[in-house]
Amino acid sequence: MTGAVYVTGAAGFIGSHLVDRLLEQGRSVIGMDNLKLGRRSNLEKALAGPRFDFIEGDVNDVAAATERLRRHRFGPIGEVWHLAANSDIQAGAADPEIDLRDTFLTTHSTLRLMEALSIPALVFASTSAIYGELDVPLREDTGPLFPASRYGAMKLASEAAIAAATQMFVERAWIFRFPNVIGPRATHGAIFDFMAKLRKDPSRLEVLGDGKQDKPYLHVQELLDAMFLAREKSGGAINCFNVSGDSSTTVRYIAERVVASAAPGARILYGTADRGWIGDVPRFRYVTDKIRALGWRPKLSSNEAVDRTIGELAR
Amino acid sequence: MTGAVYVTGAAGFIGSHLVDRLLEQGRSVIGMDNLKLGRRSNLEKALAGPRFDFIEGDVNDVAAATERLRRHRFGPIGEVWHLAANSDIQAGAADPEIDLRDTFLTTHSTLRLMEALSIPALVFASTSAIYGELDVPLREDTGPLFPASRYGAMKLASEAAIAAATQMFVERAWIFRFPNVIGPRATHGAIFDFMAKLRKDPSRLEVLGDGKQDKPYLHVQELLDAMFLAREKSGGAINCFNVSGDSSTTVRYIAERVVASAAPGARILYGTADRGWIGDVPRFRYVTDKIRALGWRPKLSSNEAVDRTIGELAR
Repeated sequence: MTGAVYVTGAAGFIGSHLVDRLLEQGRSVIGMDNLKLGRRSNLEKALAGPRFDFIEGDVNDVAAATERLRRHRFGPIGEVWHLAANSDIQAGAADPEIDLRDTFLTTHSTLRLMEALSIPALVFASTSAIYGELDVPLREDTGPLFPASRYGAMKLASEAAIAAATQMFVERAWIFRFPNVIGPRATHGAIFDFMAKLRKDPSRLEVLGDGKQDKPYLHVQELLDAMFLAREKSGGAINCFNVSGDSSTTVRYIAERVVASAAPGARILYGTADRGWIGDVPRFRYVTDKIRALGWRPKLSSNEAVDRTIGELAR
Repeated sequence: MTGAVYVTGAAGFIGSHLVDRLLEQGRSVIGMDNLKLGRRSNLEKALAGPRFDFIEGDVNDVAAATERLRRHRFGPIGEVWHLAANSDIQAGAADPEIDLRDTFLTTHSTLRLMEALSIPALVFASTSAIYGELDVPLREDTGPLFPASRYGAMKLASEAAIAAATQMFVERAWIFRFPNVIGPRATHGAIFDFMAKLRKDPSRLEVLGDGKQDKPYLHVQELLDAMFLAREKSGGAINCFNVSGDSSTTVRYIAERVVASAAPGARILYGTADRGWIGDVPRFRYVTDKIRALGWRPKLSSNEAVDRTIGELAR
């Protein structure tokens, strides 16, 4: 890995942890974020150093971004980590333009920028949601790919656009299909939502769905371990990895742990549906042989990752 | 099937043959086309009858299309056949906005229209290009899906958006993954290109690539047979079918037959590359058990379909 790194969605949950890591590794980093979901405070540490340049702007304004990155004081960009996306799946279900613009067109725009600036390498944050509701163990080559949400659809559309670009101007791309990622700075997800609800009303917690949804959760720091390892150890034109541990966590477990930490004694009220919202996939199981073959496995079980996150958020 | 049918790309190659068939079946048809690749002359027969309404317009102008179709004199729209797309793969390789706008955003816009007008059923023209360069027999559930062209990428993006829509407002969708479709009114493809070249210079035919590309060709009338059969006989939320015969045809065969028909004696000059252009996939083999289980198989071999098309074009 050489050259400066350009991170889209740099002020977001995963993006800001990524920026911190890249800076720790001695890289120079240019981060772009429109601060719609991201927060400048997530970059507090990064902004204090000399090797980080933050651009508050729109990834889809390709001309402005290209202008800003061309002849940057950090030198030529060696790679892009494209994390900008709408992470609010439910908002995307209500308005089809959100995932189109924030999740897919940001990828299209990032590829245009890469072509304009001859940036050879791309790391992309994809998702388990591309697999839809397939009721089989999910390998990287499992199909058919019929996502159940607009979020998943626009991530799959992004993967497709990236794949085509590797035939043209992108030399190498890494596609990581994330499970539920948790940790400090998250702006969505069960832990975040439950904490917010309990702050409003510490006497009760209403859970969307019956609480039996059962999915793998991964701590953001372990996700980054996996991404950096695979980025270093694989070098095909398209390198695609499911990232997840083996274990999973029920929504019921999360509800009980959040209540125990944030509002002991609150009543938990479950719904009856097997999913929380349209496009929610109640359970899935990843086959992660590929990333494991490189030597990665999470140190924390899914439940432990949940516990650690609740602890970090309680601080 | 009840209600009027709305066809996007109605003046195009496949779209106009589809319109003719639907009218023969007694349906009322509203066709939209921007006449960028489509031609009004393809609809000559349709336009002469009382049950066809042609709209020259932009599928992506959702507000205008919705206004035009709401309370149409043909009554409520029962289904959409969405064929509008950029079919010029090489143009898409040169300008990334073409496939985005004409192939993917037309799907996004068609879905918006369907939601606005509560149209329950969608038939979509997808493509073998979504499979990229996978070197295995291609079943409908084969992955990973890494298209090699922007055309294939934006068709896969369309499939993804349609899949998500079936979780919301689309009751049923049929996705047909076309092979190379040939017949009168085509505006691209080897037969069309070779004929155009020989009209310019009847003494020689320059072939892109080494002529060994070997792919299944299907006559448009047999494609429509398959689509109507599957439309009638399958009724899941997402019904996805590879459509193709078993046999295939080399580019060399096509070159020789076109020369024999259009310019006997012309010299054929082959290139050295194993493909004609970026994103061209030199060969692929479909598994078509699924559409065959419904009772469809093409009457013509791939070579016979080529011969028939050359004959039809020579008339």
